[in-house]
Amino acid sequence: MHARDLVCGFPTVTAGTPAAEAARLLAEQDLPGLIVLDGDGRPLCVLPGTQVLRLAVPRYCQDDPALARVIDEDQADAFVRALGGRTVGECLPEQPRELPITDPDATVLEVAALMARTRSPLIAVVEEGVLLGAITLQTLLARALAV
Amino acid sequence: MHARDLVCGFPTVTAGTPAAEAARLLAEQDLPGLIVLDGDGRPLCVLPGTQVLRLAVPRYCQDDPALARVIDEDQADAFVRALGGRTVGECLPEQPRELPITDPDATVLEVAALMARTRSPLIAVVEEGVLLGAITLQTLLARALAV
Repeated sequence: MHARDLVCGFPTVTAGTPAAEAARLLAEQDLPGLIVLDGDGRPLCVLPGTQVLRLAVPRYCQDDPALARVIDEDQADAFVRALGGRTVGECLPEQPRELPITDPDATVLEVAALMARTRSPLIAVVEEGVLLGAITLQTLLARALAV
Repeated sequence: MHARDLVCGFPTVTAGTPAAEAARLLAEQDLPGLIVLDGDGRPLCVLPGTQVLRLAVPRYCQDDPALARVIDEDQADAFVRALGGRTVGECLPEQPRELPITDPDATVLEVAALMARTRSPLIAVVEEGVLLGAITLQTLLARALAV
């Protein structure tokens, strides 16, 4: 069993995708993250779902938990509106040492090792620069446990 | 809207739970992680799903991607059997600066800020040391986008 046997279609975004659209994708499809493609359709990185929130949460609330508590409830409820006008490109993670990207010939063990190392529950599978799809932790575990 | 309005029941494990059972829970219920309780039923930490894999992947494969490739396919397919006999306690993350745990009075904004800061798509909600349940990124985004 190799990555090519586990890979599934997966939603992609680009740096120009509105952040609100990315949030909607994450919520509606219950995704652990999104694959971000560059202008040539090549995977640039994997964006963890939690990092989209960074654009919606004012910086002073991110840094100091106590400050988030003083925002009144109505304003807090509407925090997600802050995504309006912002794009995925603004919440891309700093370039990590290793990207959660592999090739279709990787074994299940290689995919598992990559997930553990990068702490990413979402691995993009790329063949000659073209995205084939993704493998989620859920898919990997379900298939591995069924063996 | 506060954490108490978003919280849902969520599976828990303890440090003594077999790692294979934790992997099965993650796979079958498509969970982003698990809440680990201590002996008194208090949340000890949130275990990211990817970290359960650390127990199944031999250390030399975790550290060096090239070494994982030389394991033959049959052995790679069966990697998850290495979880046998191991427990959740063996894959707990190093104690982070801040735990993804909040109280029921936290606003949506506070929960979002905590997710962004801790990079955890799963927040445990605790009242006077008792776990009420959890809030996932998916629940948070779905409710926030519906406002």
